[in-house]
Amino acid sequence: MKNNLKQRSLKLHEDNRGKIEVISKIRVETSDDLSLAYSPGVAEPCLKIKDNPEDIYKYTAKGNMIAIVTDGSAVLGLGNIGPHASLPVMEGKAILFKEFAGVDAFPICLNTQDPEEIISIVKNISPSFGGINLEDISAPNCVFIERRLKEELDIPVFHDDQHGTAIVTIAALINACRLTNRRLEDLEVVLSGTGAAGSSIARLLKDVGVKKVYGYNMEGVILKSKYDNYSFSEKELIDQSVISFPTNLQNDSLKALIENKDVFIGVSAKNLVTKDMVRSMNKDPFIFAMANPDPEISVEDALEANAYIIGTGRSDYPNQINNVLAFPGLFRGALDSKSTKITESMKLHAAKAIAYIIKDEELKRDYIIPSPFDKRVVKAVAKAVSDEVIRLKIYRK
Amino acid sequence: MKNNLKQRSLKLHEDNRGKIEVISKIRVETSDDLSLAYSPGVAEPCLKIKDNPEDIYKYTAKGNMIAIVTDGSAVLGLGNIGPHASLPVMEGKAILFKEFAGVDAFPICLNTQDPEEIISIVKNISPSFGGINLEDISAPNCVFIERRLKEELDIPVFHDDQHGTAIVTIAALINACRLTNRRLEDLEVVLSGTGAAGSSIARLLKDVGVKKVYGYNMEGVILKSKYDNYSFSEKELIDQSVISFPTNLQNDSLKALIENKDVFIGVSAKNLVTKDMVRSMNKDPFIFAMANPDPEISVEDALEANAYIIGTGRSDYPNQINNVLAFPGLFRGALDSKSTKITESMKLHAAKAIAYIIKDEELKRDYIIPSPFDKRVVKAVAKAVSDEVIRLKIYRK
Repeated sequence: MKNNLKQRSLKLHEDNRGKIEVISKIRVETSDDLSLAYSPGVAEPCLKIKDNPEDIYKYTAKGNMIAIVTDGSAVLGLGNIGPHASLPVMEGKAILFKEFAGVDAFPICLNTQDPEEIISIVKNISPSFGGINLEDISAPNCVFIERRLKEELDIPVFHDDQHGTAIVTIAALINACRLTNRRLEDLEVVLSGTGAAGSSIARLLKDVGVKKVYGYNMEGVILKSKYDNYSFSEKELIDQSVISFPTNLQNDSLKALIENKDVFIGVSAKNLVTKDMVRSMNKDPFIFAMANPDPEISVEDALEANAYIIGTGRSDYPNQINNVLAFPGLFRGALDSKSTKITESMKLHAAKAIAYIIKDEELKRDYIIPSPFDKRVVKAVAKAVSDEVIRLKIYRK
Repeated sequence: MKNNLKQRSLKLHEDNRGKIEVISKIRVETSDDLSLAYSPGVAEPCLKIKDNPEDIYKYTAKGNMIAIVTDGSAVLGLGNIGPHASLPVMEGKAILFKEFAGVDAFPICLNTQDPEEIISIVKNISPSFGGINLEDISAPNCVFIERRLKEELDIPVFHDDQHGTAIVTIAALINACRLTNRRLEDLEVVLSGTGAAGSSIARLLKDVGVKKVYGYNMEGVILKSKYDNYSFSEKELIDQSVISFPTNLQNDSLKALIENKDVFIGVSAKNLVTKDMVRSMNKDPFIFAMANPDPEISVEDALEANAYIIGTGRSDYPNQINNVLAFPGLFRGALDSKSTKITESMKLHAAKAIAYIIKDEELKRDYIIPSPFDKRVVKAVAKAVSDEVIRLKIYRK
């Protein structure tokens, strides 16, 4: 079956020679068509834009066009396969933007992994685009690149690998609480993986009201005493009090940390969590084990160890934490509201919108996340994001 | 009427919010679709490309996708209006590629006019593209940029403003000769404008067999004695004996140069040529006055002065020298034949293919150039170009 999927995917890609196509929205069949769409008529929108730069959104496709930018350094679970081999993923992303949210998206695969060069290129190609979706760029470069581009561009910039998972994880957590009548404020959360995605999850957890987020990375529990060893973004999590420090731990193992906690969120590595560790958690724990393609603990093991809610990145199990629930609607809302940026609060509103697609009475242990094919999701996310842009007044005039 | 065109063009652009759209070639309606087009199935074409870089042409849209790259420095007749204001033109170009030749094309408007930076950016974004169409970049940068990119990239690179006009002009000249039973070898040609486009015309004139091409620029007739004053590309034309030097000229004016010549080709400025100047030429002269939007001499004046063939850049007169006759078929042929470059001989074969669309018995003074809407043009150009690629063995293996 898995092999079958591989062969079918290859055939699909080969038969169609890739997945995207650039088409005309208007007819060009007569001399008159040509003189309107091209020379000499096209001079007119050009001159309008020259006189009033904002008119580029009126007369061109820019306002609905985003660049999917990668350096091929951290592609899916495949690692640093480079810009050429990453193109099928970027085309895939582009068609998801279009099919799910009507957003035009074009893959830009960069033949450099130098962060300064990437920043400079994205700034230089930005006139054609109304937004930038950074994709599959490895940490810590991705954090640095996104931050600089957010500062230096006046269009929305978003690194999906950092924030997409975070948004959907928060949506799942909100619904796990709704289903079990727990309060986000009361949860004690263990976050395994404090890289780019983990950092974004930690921040959104705090934003949504969670008080206690404990961190764990490959070297052990995140502790103030080990501050000097940490990466730039881990230090930030500590400096900004996003991460809490556990007290009275026997040692700095995940096993010691997870005991008596309510939630495990993993964006780390497979098989980190054992059944005994789940059993040592507080009653009816939530397990979001999102290591790809194999989770920190298998769904079967987690169930056996009495996890109450289990979410993974996998499409073959319930509660898939799938970024496609977030990024299409997020950009749809940002573009529609003429937003100049993507803020933390826009992400938070996106998460809430995803969660509340499911009504109280519909929530179940294996249905805390809506289907990516639920047509209501994009609309709800776009509206929530757009409303927030208007509230924050961060739109182009 | 002209005003009407402007208003209609603005409305067309505004109603459609620009002219291009990026769509999916495949369905994404079910979970299975998603797992084939995106994760996890998409990993398979990625891995194939990682193992065999040539497979990018098999599994992605790269092989039919070109970038339309501009820095906005010389847009239409509008000058240096910058990358933002140039976007309507680049989108227009993109839809012409698609509508005329089925080539996917995407506008990349660059926020820099530094040649080294442009070269570096185009090289860095090239993984997504099967060809590069440089557009509306001012001279001399365009010559330098094109040359470097041709050397440093393994995909076709073409600056339409230099070579597009040249190809169609040569096609027109071939047909003017066919109609009047003259031989290209016997023609004495005055070329007004020896910048980027003029240089390309001069080279193709020599390639097609014209023996005598005299040059004129804003400072006067091109003469060996003024060598030190010339631009890099004018010096090259002299060094490579592309330009001939007139003898016994009374002075270095265009008026003196044009006397007793057979052909005037202008890519220079309006109203340079008077009726008296045309009358001083050899009998039944050919006038290709392509300054935009106003030609070197009006069609009415040239007719009155007994020009036999008159071609201009204007769509409202016969014999429009329109680049759209060349670039779609040229890239179609280059992409179909997996060419790694665009050579002079490919351009020459494109010119001949355009010319011979019109049969001997169909040729008329006001029909030496086929209509851009003649469906045979793209096919004939693509085939001629593709055949030449195969003959030269410059295709990817």
